[in-house]
Amino acid sequence: MVVELLEFSLTTHPNDILNITDHVKKALASVAISNGIVVVYMPGSTGGISFVEYEPGLVKTDIPALLQKLMPEGPDYSHHQTWGDHNGHSHLRSFLIPPSLSIPIRDGHLLLGTWQQIVFCEFDEKPRTRTIYCQFIG
Amino acid sequence: MVVELLEFSLTTHPNDILNITDHVKKALASVAISNGIVVVYMPGSTGGISFVEYEPGLVKTDIPALLQKLMPEGPDYSHHQTWGDHNGHSHLRSFLIPPSLSIPIRDGHLLLGTWQQIVFCEFDEKPRTRTIYCQFIG
Amino acid sequence: MVVELLEFSLTTHPNDILNITDHVKKALASVAISNGIVVVYMPGSTGGISFVEYEPGLVKTDIPALLQKLMPEGPDYSHHQTWGDHNGHSHLRSFLIPPSLSIPIRDGHLLLGTWQQIVFCEFDEKPRTRTIYCQFIG
Repeated sequence: MVVELLEFSLTTHPNDILNITDHVKKALASVAISNGIVVVYMPGSTGGISFVEYEPGLVKTDIPALLQKLMPEGPDYSHHQTWGDHNGHSHLRSFLIPPSLSIPIRDGHLLLGTWQQIVFCEFDEKPRTRTIYCQFIG
Repeated sequence: MVVELLEFSLTTHPNDILNITDHVKKALASVAISNGIVVVYMPGSTGGISFVEYEPGLVKTDIPALLQKLMPEGPDYSHHQTWGDHNGHSHLRSFLIPPSLSIPIRDGHLLLGTWQQIVFCEFDEKPRTRTIYCQFIG
Repeated sequence: MVVELLEFSLTTHPNDILNITDHVKKALASVAISNGIVVVYMPGSTGGISFVEYEPGLVKTDIPALLQKLMPEGPDYSHHQTWGDHNGHSHLRSFLIPPSLSIPIRDGHLLLGTWQQIVFCEFDEKPRTRTIYCQFIG
């Protein structure tokens, strides 16, 4: 069995929804795994990882509108009173869309649909440098 | 260690919430794993996988009403302008409820609660044939 | 390879959001794994597992308010007519925030951010005794 952890970094801005599919494919290409899984993961509590068809209508307009409807930026959340910061919405979004996702690997390839891309969502209110981990097991 | 990928197919209709527990159990019965995990997974960006107590009140009424409230079918999403299709709501639902779920296996059985069933949710607007993968590791 | 399943129990009350990070760390300390993953999991359909910065503003006020907004307790869900119970909201919350989460392990430690804690969310309407499982693979 192979267990191998690879990482890559991203420079992010608030509300970014970044296509990280090629980063994960590149990581996979450097490990000796034909069949297994990868857990794509970001250590933190103000980001999320999910799948989406990566086109501007969804990632620039529809998903940001959904997030703003469900967990709006703006209200004075109780979280703000604890630390004096303003990112209550960031934590709520990460609670609902956590930064951990498992994907099967078959014959050396990620098992993805034609239009399915892996995205990292920056929910925080400030630019960040994020480290994304790919834990391969197979 | 055993790594084994099995698959099964489903014919689906829009808004289907299908109980796939027996499909996954049947796949498990054919692999030589006593302890480990299974990643239940659908490659695509307009479906979801989750757990639910499988009874008609929830799967025919309450969950469809929840999905329609949070991510309604009907609005003219920006996604529609990119491709000329009408399934923006399908992508939003799959973003929030992604088609990947990991379940422990103990002594050759899925570790499920008494009422807990695994479901595939068809979020797309047209009938589909879906392939669901079970990646077993143990 | 090591595959080891550990468990711990929690006594819960409705709307509890409990920090289980130390329980998972303690389980990890007793298994012979340096690198791999843990699937933190609760068998059941009225609880959830996610990450959050564990401070009272979020766990006592902001997250309960979010859950009540998205999937309110109160309405007479169709689920209630099937069994005569009153926990339709519990099932909806668990459908959206399922009780399964995978976390990488590196050099014998959970790969967690500074403020990132693992939480079990009790969505049911009555006090429960819950068993949480940690399936370690590495």
